[in-house]
Amino acid sequence: MAVAGGSTMAADPGTRRGGRRRQREAGAAGPAQPPWRRLRRHFEPVRAVSDDELEAIHQASMRVLAETGMDFLHPRARALWADAGADVDGDRVRLDPALVGSLVEQAPSRFTLHSRNPAHDVEIGGDAVVFSPVASAPYVGDVAGGRREGNQRDFENLVRLSQVLNAVHLHAGYPVEPTDIHASVRHLHATRSLLKLTDKVPHAYSLGQQRNLDCLEMVRIARQVDDATLDREPSIHTVINASSPLRLDEPMLEGVLQYSARNQVVILTPFTLAGAMAPVTVAGALVQQNAEALAGIAFTQLVRPGAPVVYGGFTSNVDMRSGSPAFGTPEFMKAALVGGQLARRAGVPYRSSNVCAANAVDSQSGYESVFSLWGAIMGGANVVFHGAGWLEGGLRASYEKMVIDADVLQMVAAFLEPLVVDDAALTVDAIAEVGPGGHFFGVQHTQDRFRHAFFAPMVSDWRNFESWEEAGSPTALDHSARLVGELLAAYETPPMEPEVAAELDDFVERRVAEGGVPTDF
Amino acid sequence: MAVAGGSTMAADPGTRRGGRRRQREAGAAGPAQPPWRRLRRHFEPVRAVSDDELEAIHQASMRVLAETGMDFLHPRARALWADAGADVDGDRVRLDPALVGSLVEQAPSRFTLHSRNPAHDVEIGGDAVVFSPVASAPYVGDVAGGRREGNQRDFENLVRLSQVLNAVHLHAGYPVEPTDIHASVRHLHATRSLLKLTDKVPHAYSLGQQRNLDCLEMVRIARQVDDATLDREPSIHTVINASSPLRLDEPMLEGVLQYSARNQVVILTPFTLAGAMAPVTVAGALVQQNAEALAGIAFTQLVRPGAPVVYGGFTSNVDMRSGSPAFGTPEFMKAALVGGQLARRAGVPYRSSNVCAANAVDSQSGYESVFSLWGAIMGGANVVFHGAGWLEGGLRASYEKMVIDADVLQMVAAFLEPLVVDDAALTVDAIAEVGPGGHFFGVQHTQDRFRHAFFAPMVSDWRNFESWEEAGSPTALDHSARLVGELLAAYETPPMEPEVAAELDDFVERRVAEGGVPTDF
Repeated sequence: MAVAGGSTMAADPGTRRGGRRRQREAGAAGPAQPPWRRLRRHFEPVRAVSDDELEAIHQASMRVLAETGMDFLHPRARALWADAGADVDGDRVRLDPALVGSLVEQAPSRFTLHSRNPAHDVEIGGDAVVFSPVASAPYVGDVAGGRREGNQRDFENLVRLSQVLNAVHLHAGYPVEPTDIHASVRHLHATRSLLKLTDKVPHAYSLGQQRNLDCLEMVRIARQVDDATLDREPSIHTVINASSPLRLDEPMLEGVLQYSARNQVVILTPFTLAGAMAPVTVAGALVQQNAEALAGIAFTQLVRPGAPVVYGGFTSNVDMRSGSPAFGTPEFMKAALVGGQLARRAGVPYRSSNVCAANAVDSQSGYESVFSLWGAIMGGANVVFHGAGWLEGGLRASYEKMVIDADVLQMVAAFLEPLVVDDAALTVDAIAEVGPGGHFFGVQHTQDRFRHAFFAPMVSDWRNFESWEEAGSPTALDHSARLVGELLAAYETPPMEPEVAAELDDFVERRVAEGGVPTDF
Repeated sequence: MAVAGGSTMAADPGTRRGGRRRQREAGAAGPAQPPWRRLRRHFEPVRAVSDDELEAIHQASMRVLAETGMDFLHPRARALWADAGADVDGDRVRLDPALVGSLVEQAPSRFTLHSRNPAHDVEIGGDAVVFSPVASAPYVGDVAGGRREGNQRDFENLVRLSQVLNAVHLHAGYPVEPTDIHASVRHLHATRSLLKLTDKVPHAYSLGQQRNLDCLEMVRIARQVDDATLDREPSIHTVINASSPLRLDEPMLEGVLQYSARNQVVILTPFTLAGAMAPVTVAGALVQQNAEALAGIAFTQLVRPGAPVVYGGFTSNVDMRSGSPAFGTPEFMKAALVGGQLARRAGVPYRSSNVCAANAVDSQSGYESVFSLWGAIMGGANVVFHGAGWLEGGLRASYEKMVIDADVLQMVAAFLEPLVVDDAALTVDAIAEVGPGGHFFGVQHTQDRFRHAFFAPMVSDWRNFESWEEAGSPTALDHSARLVGELLAAYETPPMEPEVAAELDDFVERRVAEGGVPTDF
């Protein structure tokens, strides 16, 4: 199948390459980057509210679930709740706090997500931190081509960019929606691309039973494991969004029913925009977020006790002038901190995001994104979604912002590395050697270390003004536009045994021939 | 004196205005901003090293002071140290840890800096946080006029901008150096401008005895207090930089001798660039920073026990490729966190900065600045210098960046405001009223609050792409360039009694007629 372009070359889906060996020979090194590596947070997360205030938020969300309840728009979900003793009335399910608590406490506090390349397995939870690229943008853009609708070519190039950028740990969906692939077979082609063009943990959308089954089977083939192993080793994750306020719809619940049943990872994320789908107060929006998240997390445990699940916080606010969502705001930051406190109270890993509302790759996109990361990282997020490439409130995936954000994420990664405090680092001797009025560059202590002493950016331009001006006054946007090309040129398709690739291709071709899934939504 | 332009109008130093009443009538409201207000940090600062590691850094810096010592390039300073029992050998002073400790512990942990307008008094220390604009840039730039040498017109316009921007609490020097005013009288004209064009706490450079005396007298006149009151009420501050490594030069020590003697505020800030004037390891650079800072702080207490002093942390790293200083780096962030731990160990307020190395107002300037603020704020900084307008590693003051940073600082201020967690905010009732699948905009809880519920930016553009594109696709730089004009147009000279202004003018005219200060440096 040429259309999904499994083993095609960077930036040119039409050119086939000659197998793994030739790929390695042809592979350019590309711009220097710190390596792909696992990150840990070495400081305590910041608490934005007191323990008493946290308890007040939690108890208010328990009251919401007990008194108002939530709509679960799936008969099997309601049947499971009824069996568990919940108060089911039409679509509405009212939950006793004790029932919610007893279910939530069965969720694991940490687990491993397995990749087809074990070097890219990631731990979720505890003090581990992982980053994903942008997901689910309907539009895509770059400096050269402008803003356009999502399509397969850009989808695949952004997937390649996600593979080559070491800051990216795992996927979180399609960076941009490949809308030129028919919806009936899109999940087949796109998931194959994720599995063949990259060897980082994939994500699948919960879009109904058959698509879920297809994605689970493709991941199983890519990992070359049997069903029992897949059930022991979470290997794919899916985002389950509450249709806030207080509703989980049919495809989302179907996703929990299937992915949780197979011990795969559910990222339960209410979309609680304060002033729109949630109260206008941040505390109120957090009450609702916590009610929806805990109801969803409890439901995963009803489906399969011990199934891996993540508490997703996405509370931000709307711009009250335009009604547009705003991101990277002070309200987002505070909600991100409290979200972490609530997730830790629940005893499950925590997801936040690197988001902004900017329409351009400008100063605003820079400061809004780092404000988001500030809230996410200091809030103790284990999973940072949309880490690289999110622009325009998530409506556009930007090639250049993906590269800039990857640099920013590597800065966060370097910040997370603990400071080395030993005698060699404290270096009273080198200070004595240099003495008052001296200079450190010439001493052995510096010479031994200077090459790798500091974070070295891809994008940031640290030249003095004169050299920078002589070079044409390049902005971060100019640098990132150049780097997009260099990184895609350096992309190498990660190795996959030919028989595995063939099995994947056979599966996709068979399912496409069957017509995929009728577009029922 | 027209040259210093005390009561001249924004952006047009040639146009005199007709007194306070007419100024008020003429004053435009300008772009909406949150008010000038005092900020408090409501969370614990983040610890980047353990207590044991902190003690190791501190003890290493004590060893540096005892074994290597510091050069104090001022005979009176050395005489004071000798009297106190220190080991003085030529310029070199070696300090016993017990002596340093007994002096540092006399420094106050918090104090008030008094303005000529008591509404702009600021507390320094504890959990208070204050912001200053950029200081001491040799160049200035804006979109309209490009990059140029510092001059009086731009100096005064940036001072006006600092006055009108509510995010700015106090000054930290000249935003840009007015190099077209002769150095012999520059401090007279420039300090008068700071005192007349604004009513926020001024800063004075420590550039020798006579200049210090002149600035103290001008501040006394502006506040209309006697010398005894000035000595009780700190009303001006001065930055004392160590000439790292391990040296305090003559003008700096003269500054401590005079400002500390008068109970004015000293911000003791070593300039410890790791890999250049400090060890290539961040821990080593912090050892040296702490040695220099504590030696300087101890010296202020030798001059006057109880004199107000601030621990300044400015440790960053050089770019090992170009030798240029880098700012807003992961190393800067970690050093900012540990700097706060060291300052709290010393029991004095802590100063950090909002800095970047970017040459343009682009994504890099946005992310580097917020990374700096992340380190500063989470590190517990009480005073954030260069908060608005710093570009190009401090070589350029940027009009547009000053406006963007002011917005960014207001976001930090909103982030610092505690989350309201009470029944009205938690609003279980509004959630019940809206219920599953509803919308919050129409309910009374939202209607009562939406106008002031969220931070409203000056710069950030939150419109959807279509509206934004129709408006000409303005970037943050475009918005800030427009806002510079609007803000300067809205500038009003703060009230000053005519006789006070006359006294200040008389003093300046007399001292200028005397030739100011011979340019001895």
